[in-house]
Amino acid sequence: MAMRCAGVSAIRALCSSANSTRHVHSTAGSKKIVGVFYKANEYAELNPNFVGTVERGLGIRDWLESQGHQYVVTDDKEGPDCELEKHLSDLHVLITTPFHPAYVTAERIKKAKNLKLLLTAGIGSDHIDLKAAAEAGLTVAEVTGSNVVSVAEDELMRILILVRNFLPGYHQVINGDWNVAGIAHRAYDLEGKTVGTVGAGRIGRLLLQRLKPFNCNLLYHDRIKIDPELENQTGAKFEEDLDAMLPKCDIIVLNTPLTEKTRGMLDKERISKLKKGVLIVNNARGALVDTQAVADACTSGHIGGYSGDVWFPQPAPKDHPWRYMPNQAMTPHISGTTIDAQLRYAAGTKDMLDRYFKGEEFPLQNYIVKEGVLAPQYR
Amino acid sequence: MAMRCAGVSAIRALCSSANSTRHVHSTAGSKKIVGVFYKANEYAELNPNFVGTVERGLGIRDWLESQGHQYVVTDDKEGPDCELEKHLSDLHVLITTPFHPAYVTAERIKKAKNLKLLLTAGIGSDHIDLKAAAEAGLTVAEVTGSNVVSVAEDELMRILILVRNFLPGYHQVINGDWNVAGIAHRAYDLEGKTVGTVGAGRIGRLLLQRLKPFNCNLLYHDRIKIDPELENQTGAKFEEDLDAMLPKCDIIVLNTPLTEKTRGMLDKERISKLKKGVLIVNNARGALVDTQAVADACTSGHIGGYSGDVWFPQPAPKDHPWRYMPNQAMTPHISGTTIDAQLRYAAGTKDMLDRYFKGEEFPLQNYIVKEGVLAPQYR
Repeated sequence: MAMRCAGVSAIRALCSSANSTRHVHSTAGSKKIVGVFYKANEYAELNPNFVGTVERGLGIRDWLESQGHQYVVTDDKEGPDCELEKHLSDLHVLITTPFHPAYVTAERIKKAKNLKLLLTAGIGSDHIDLKAAAEAGLTVAEVTGSNVVSVAEDELMRILILVRNFLPGYHQVINGDWNVAGIAHRAYDLEGKTVGTVGAGRIGRLLLQRLKPFNCNLLYHDRIKIDPELENQTGAKFEEDLDAMLPKCDIIVLNTPLTEKTRGMLDKERISKLKKGVLIVNNARGALVDTQAVADACTSGHIGGYSGDVWFPQPAPKDHPWRYMPNQAMTPHISGTTIDAQLRYAAGTKDMLDRYFKGEEFPLQNYIVKEGVLAPQYR
Repeated sequence: MAMRCAGVSAIRALCSSANSTRHVHSTAGSKKIVGVFYKANEYAELNPNFVGTVERGLGIRDWLESQGHQYVVTDDKEGPDCELEKHLSDLHVLITTPFHPAYVTAERIKKAKNLKLLLTAGIGSDHIDLKAAAEAGLTVAEVTGSNVVSVAEDELMRILILVRNFLPGYHQVINGDWNVAGIAHRAYDLEGKTVGTVGAGRIGRLLLQRLKPFNCNLLYHDRIKIDPELENQTGAKFEEDLDAMLPKCDIIVLNTPLTEKTRGMLDKERISKLKKGVLIVNNARGALVDTQAVADACTSGHIGGYSGDVWFPQPAPKDHPWRYMPNQAMTPHISGTTIDAQLRYAAGTKDMLDRYFKGEEFPLQNYIVKEGVLAPQYR
């Protein structure tokens, strides 16, 4: 069993050079791998490609077991007596997802004495205490790119649902009503509106490309400008100052990772400075916004519509205010776990496990924490 | 008062050359103009641009009355005692919309002895008996182009809603549930799917342009090929044979006008030949499809999802089967009556009235029936 270095990065770097067994790459022998996924239940048999579930476990069980590894999957992730807790003491690799997040706290990391590798099947590892993971010398990696198209498509759907006021019409249909005026008085075209994305990373850029033919006024804020060719292709304008951009927008889309810097960035004060009736789409992370401030602004009408698939915590409790606020078009966390996305992040997770067993590096962009060192955007 | 020629086209053409007073263009004097719109009711005051309503009457009342014309607006359009019927005997111009269609039957045309001009505020004049209108020597014109962007945007929204399985997630949210598997087992990305449009006129072409960045396999069927530049730009492939195209499609979008040739085109037999789980979007006209065959195929699962805003008749009765079939994402007829679209079709209607009063021609593409002669696609 590999030794484990629990110091801070600097110490770990030292450990790492002094003792190669602390390296993330697998030493020989059987590994215990635990995966936490949502359950498919009665839906398990309905789709042969429904791999991102407890029942299918990313479709890697036979492959893992044929190599002598142990593979445990569960959806039971909360509280001291849950199934996940039972395996913390001897697991080597923990696979989690953002859709049914196992919150990997500092306390859990401390208990997991053999843990070396945290793999996120999907994108977004904020359910993991990255600082604690780094201090423990762990590696955290995602399947970067696996579901960026899925999320960008979903964002455009949500923009259209809000701007065109889809849901009141649907409610009329199922309620036996017909009242075009009740929908039309606040239904608009997307064409000509100002859309701003907070963050123009992989997902934000894909969204801008998909928005291009809609003839909007496209703005983006990020730490750095996107490459000039893409800027030219999409016509999106760089806004260096977030607070200068936000009040110009008819529609705001959040496309930034959740970090200590971005947590709660859309708070009561920022919301108060937005255009009255602004529409907000957030498929990034629920904790980027102040939950109650969003609910209050939807109720007052200052926010004209809010749609997204991310909440805090997840699953969202029954009394989460976003379930009941007006003009919401929310869903559970789903945009990145389409069947197409599942096949991609299952393949990407398998690829990283394979590299881990063989002592090979992962694709560079997959690392969130590499042997105790945080990727730049999380520092 | 101008004389009126009630013969068939050939006779009317003769009449027209023999007697210029039968010409559509207005003779001097006060005209009686009747507009049939949906009522805004309590929504009237919520938006100053909500012009396509009884309360606002396209915003042209002051302009019409200042020129000595009479302007009557109503939403009361059904049955022998309705408000519309009371004005048939002496109106000169009737303005209708597809959203709250006044069905202009042969019988009504016969009663309307002074009627010269039927204007559709919007696009789609199939609520008018075009053959009877032509035989009566009338002119029927639309505000072509006024809401094509609105409808194309709405179609893309509906494609995404179906392919990504949005509504079951929304229902979970409002019902206090959280079950990602219940959504994800049939949620897909649009990327890579085969999308076919039946009809590539103005709306179909705008849809293809908006679909382009989604990296789909795009197909289109129409009487003629779209221009090579657009074909090249969108990558859409021409399918001469409708029945060869339809079974290739994961998603089918109807973008063809309702004519005697297209009525009921998607019938039980054609549906049976589609891919199992096919998604269908129809913002064109409800009567293009066999109502019960669609409902049955949604129930059996052969159609995986159906979304649109058009029904027959409209308003849809409370017992219309599409209200209750599974996997529907229907709304009342709304896509072409966004606030942006209303402003455009109100302006276009005013422009045609102005030309009518001045004896000027309309933009050529607006004519559906020009002084008794049907536009080619309606013959």
